Amino acid sequence: MYEGVVQDLIDELGRLPGVGPKSAQRIAFHILQAEPVDVRRLAQALMEVKAKVRFCATCGNVAQEEQCNICRDTRRDPSVICVVEEPKDVVAIERTREFRGRYHVLGGAISPIDGVGPDDLRIRELLARLADGSVTELILATDPNLEGEATATYLARMIKPMGLKVTRLASGLPVGGDLEYADEVTLGRAFEGRRLLDV
Amino acid sequence: MYEGVVQDLIDELGRLPGVGPKSAQRIAFHILQAEPVDVRRLAQALMEVKAKVRFCATCGNVAQEEQCNICRDTRRDPSVICVVEEPKDVVAIERTREFRGRYHVLGGAISPIDGVGPDDLRIRELLARLADGSVTELILATDPNLEGEATATYLARMIKPMGLKVTRLASGLPVGGDLEYADEVTLGRAFEGRRLLDV
Repeated sequence: MYEGVVQDLIDELGRLPGVGPKSAQRIAFHILQAEPVDVRRLAQALMEVKAKVRFCATCGNVAQEEQCNICRDTRRDPSVICVVEEPKDVVAIERTREFRGRYHVLGGAISPIDGVGPDDLRIRELLARLADGSVTELILATDPNLEGEATATYLARMIKPMGLKVTRLASGLPVGGDLEYADEVTLGRAFEGRRLLDV
Repeated sequence: MYEGVVQDLIDELGRLPGVGPKSAQRIAFHILQAEPVDVRRLAQALMEVKAKVRFCATCGNVAQEEQCNICRDTRRDPSVICVVEEPKDVVAIERTREFRGRYHVLGGAISPIDGVGPDDLRIRELLARLADGSVTELILATDPNLEGEATATYLARMIKPMGLKVTRLASGLPVGGDLEYADEVTLGRAFEGRRLLDV
């Protein structure tokens, strides 16, 4: 419908996740009217990410060096490893400022439907990190859904016999939410995981 | 939160219209995992649009030449001009295949709140196109909202004395919609514009 290069841009934008044909058109017209310097900055940011970002050789998080910022930070406790599915989970946990250990990014979760088995995840690399016995606790922070739970169970069964403390993030009611809107499974988990109040 | 270039990309993406922080993050991770050749194509499409696209000297539509495809198309009727606000309105009307005349893109609508007055629109260029008397009908297809109606009224008052037929797109019930869900203004317009059925 549009002249050549405009349609090309709409097509390319439409391939991005969460960008439908209408948003692609809207973004393309924004680009048409934007300052050339701003568009060049976006195009450069895209190319730079591909050129400079790799994955941390130790934990699999995004990194600009051989190792990511967290693995290079000597103030972080190397005896606790928090296992997550994706780099964005690392960011979510870092935002809480609750955790001062290291991470291990699996690169996904076990999902037979999507054809993802244990060998497709960075599990061998995790076992290598546990080999010297310096790690004392493994926190399994995979998503609280079917695939994440299956992955956590798989890892727990494999790693518990090695004598480490293996923990899983608590499931329960979201803070600030309404009890009546919680689904049955979440509410059931909240009961299971109830704690003594020391008052 | 992210290492340098990843955060840069998230920031740049977040500046696009309709892309919030979560979508920006999601797109950035998609880019991280995409093939370098695909990312290069997107970056190039961005730069090409800025380098090659300009606005048609006659109608103001997007164009890759001095004039847009429609103004260059000699099969299009030059005696009817359809006035729209934005280039994307041209595309929407072209999709209907109902109109075989030419367009004039104003570049917006009169909106005192946004500080857009008649002088900020391509009205002078429109009057120049009407000067030689070859245009017989002007269809005002600005948006059916406050600003679009104000712009249509402004243009009609200015141009009707020149002896042209000045028309406005019909307002009424959207085809395929439910009468009970139509707002009062639309339903009122549908009554006003009711037509004799010739059966």
